[in-house]
Amino acid sequence: VILETARRALTPQTLQGKKVLVSAGPTWEPFDPVRFITNPSSGKMGFALAAEAARRGASVDLVTGPTTLPDPAGLTTHRITTARDMERVVRTLAEEAHLVIMAAAVSDYRPEEAAPHKIKKDDEELTIRLVRNPDILAGLGKNKKPGQILVGFAAETEHLVRNATEKLQRKNLDLIVANDLTQPGAGFRSDTNVVKVLDRFGGVEELPCLSKEEIARRLLDRIESLGAR
Amino acid sequence: VILETARRALTPQTLQGKKVLVSAGPTWEPFDPVRFITNPSSGKMGFALAAEAARRGASVDLVTGPTTLPDPAGLTTHRITTARDMERVVRTLAEEAHLVIMAAAVSDYRPEEAAPHKIKKDDEELTIRLVRNPDILAGLGKNKKPGQILVGFAAETEHLVRNATEKLQRKNLDLIVANDLTQPGAGFRSDTNVVKVLDRFGGVEELPCLSKEEIARRLLDRIESLGAR
Repeated sequence: VILETARRALTPQTLQGKKVLVSAGPTWEPFDPVRFITNPSSGKMGFALAAEAARRGASVDLVTGPTTLPDPAGLTTHRITTARDMERVVRTLAEEAHLVIMAAAVSDYRPEEAAPHKIKKDDEELTIRLVRNPDILAGLGKNKKPGQILVGFAAETEHLVRNATEKLQRKNLDLIVANDLTQPGAGFRSDTNVVKVLDRFGGVEELPCLSKEEIARRLLDRIESLGAR
Repeated sequence: VILETARRALTPQTLQGKKVLVSAGPTWEPFDPVRFITNPSSGKMGFALAAEAARRGASVDLVTGPTTLPDPAGLTTHRITTARDMERVVRTLAEEAHLVIMAAAVSDYRPEEAAPHKIKKDDEELTIRLVRNPDILAGLGKNKKPGQILVGFAAETEHLVRNATEKLQRKNLDLIVANDLTQPGAGFRSDTNVVKVLDRFGGVEELPCLSKEEIARRLLDRIESLGAR
């Protein structure tokens, strides 16, 4: 906390008076009390963005799925489990936010039913029917407030720029951060990431392999300049 | 490491010359490069058991699924992802082990197929066919070496003692540690646990809510007395 106070004192307060909402981590989608569908997100990228925004003077809400990372200093952390939990919390907090950064890896699908007790492994095979989860990011794009900046992430294993551009437009985003999961040093659980940043004016910037903290700083610089445009 | 060396110096070397194999953590069973089925295991119970066995002078191999816990000092950690990876490593290491403690929460099922690329969420519904994973503990029970002690875990949400006793007998175990996931302070991710210990002579001992470190000590005391019986 002391270190964090010192870092903040040394950081220009460029987001003073702004409300920032960040999502992070995976979601867990249960099909019984002890089994669920998820993804490898560690929450590191979203936690780094939330911490950096707080350092720049913003009032920050961080909504995170299950992760072992501790609550960052100087902001409010909300812990949720499923995509539907996350949607409820994010939708309310987005009402007031100047900047919304959705870095969570929300599960696109959830099991149609969750058994009340642990399923005994009596059967050789088991079929799980999955249904689509709400698309939180698309919902925020549809209800975007005037002047609000909305940033999304796209983790892809193929057609990176094409898939990310399509997502940016369809979801009414201002910026999308695309990472190619097949590259070394990129994506989930790593302390580093390799990303391309696409904006709604057609700009594409490729960042080298950097720490997630450094990527957080560069993304916020970029977002601040977008707001001033 | 210094603290650990001091703790070891103060611990009676009751497992000197013994080889101990411990499994820990969850397994991840992927259905595409970024999505998988898993459970909430943090690995804490298995890591605590492995560390305590090493303190008592044993030569310890810890085989763990994905967890954010660091490698414990004074033993060999093997990191794996799926149940099939775990089976391969455990089966080999069990050949030489005097004591085998399977604390991992191995996924009973895995998706029949894993897509090579991230599945696009084009469909409203998706069906995943799951097939049974190998039962690692039952395999070890079938191939138990003379004098080898085999310990399993049972996490249940109903019929705790009945389900655990059935498992102990069917899998040829010497001891089973049963925990009721519905109790507060018990089971996954918690730093504490509430367990019942059942042995092959019909003994049932109920431990109060204790730290996972303290449970590790009591379980190893119990296992040592079982070996001397």
